[in-house]
Amino acid sequence: MEMNIDHHISSRFNEELEGIRTRALQMGGAVEKQLANALAAISKGDLELAKEVVDSDYLINAQEVEIDEQCTKILAIRQPAARDLRLIITVIKTITDLERMGDEAQRVGRMAKQLVEHSYPSKHFQQIRNLGDHVSRMLHDALDAFARTDIDAALQVLEEDQRVDQEYETIMRQLITFMMEDPRSIPRSLEIMWSARALERIGDRSCNIAEYVVYFVRGRDIRHTQLSDVQDGLD
Amino acid sequence: MEMNIDHHISSRFNEELEGIRTRALQMGGAVEKQLANALAAISKGDLELAKEVVDSDYLINAQEVEIDEQCTKILAIRQPAARDLRLIITVIKTITDLERMGDEAQRVGRMAKQLVEHSYPSKHFQQIRNLGDHVSRMLHDALDAFARTDIDAALQVLEEDQRVDQEYETIMRQLITFMMEDPRSIPRSLEIMWSARALERIGDRSCNIAEYVVYFVRGRDIRHTQLSDVQDGLD
Repeated sequence: MEMNIDHHISSRFNEELEGIRTRALQMGGAVEKQLANALAAISKGDLELAKEVVDSDYLINAQEVEIDEQCTKILAIRQPAARDLRLIITVIKTITDLERMGDEAQRVGRMAKQLVEHSYPSKHFQQIRNLGDHVSRMLHDALDAFARTDIDAALQVLEEDQRVDQEYETIMRQLITFMMEDPRSIPRSLEIMWSARALERIGDRSCNIAEYVVYFVRGRDIRHTQLSDVQDGLD
Repeated sequence: MEMNIDHHISSRFNEELEGIRTRALQMGGAVEKQLANALAAISKGDLELAKEVVDSDYLINAQEVEIDEQCTKILAIRQPAARDLRLIITVIKTITDLERMGDEAQRVGRMAKQLVEHSYPSKHFQQIRNLGDHVSRMLHDALDAFARTDIDAALQVLEEDQRVDQEYETIMRQLITFMMEDPRSIPRSLEIMWSARALERIGDRSCNIAEYVVYFVRGRDIRHTQLSDVQDGLD
């Protein structure tokens, strides 16, 4: 009889853990959608879509607060240990990064709004779009690595970040040259710079999520570690 | 006898909790010092000090990982609830922000290094210094509010942020004008912009810490809430 009760409690507990994992992934999906809309708003010069991105950020904030509360409740009531505890810590950290990525997507949406309203043309839109697509894939892959608790996929996200950083540096250098050649372009070039910066930050935060996946699976904190050391250690 | 054992365990537990609180405050002190050194490096044009800031960031990263591990260990072994649990969650979140503030301070240090190496003169240094002093006070007050678990002090930090944002906007506007008037100044003006941005972010993160203090004391999450609503609710 007692075993059945234990079993019953533990299966409810598992449902709760599965629940916060699912909620975190849904929140991740919402951030992906915000980012995709922000990038589409730039490409298409779609003012309505840009406004929607700016006005929808509160929904992501609300999800963070809700999931955070669920995690704290589970910690208090279930007093989990080992892998279960690591899952909850992973979720708490992941949703913090997701919320900040939502802020960055909102920033890109705000720029899209500015650029469309002042009908700024820019030959740099395509580059921003490319950088945006690149970090969108990183975010998607990081969430995928989390969903499948796949360390190899997580490490690939970390590798990808070097390419994103190079792409970002190239855009910045070109924009600086462009600003110096045509000082009247400075205000709109700065808007594009801030967006590039926001996108680059989304790449960084995708790496954070990938690092939490490694921590969750291996119980090992790899933040502030050289990628090559991590790969050696895991082989 | 049993009561004595309980008492003994609970006093050891309290020591552990006090321990992570103290460690978090020490880490906060280290970030304050990094920020102070970065600002001094700009004011004095001190290349050695700027290098020291850039090279010392790893110490702050190490503190974050260590405190994080202690928190996870306490969660697993002591299975705390209520206020004790909130303290640990507060510390976990606070040290994440402190680590990122360390990164921002490092960024300012890197700019100081650039500016001194290329002996860039700038009439904007004083403004950066003022903004830096302002956010240094915010960080100090946020850590103080955490040390004394003082909600009023925490709310004052949140209020201060509006003034920092205005100061930041003023600097940005002036730099844009300056860049348009003298396009050759663009690269160094951008360096100053990134620093202003880094400092403004330290102000934002000081607010995060202040919000965690309110959460810790009242058990209420005030993130994403209008400051006026929070003050009404607490009165």
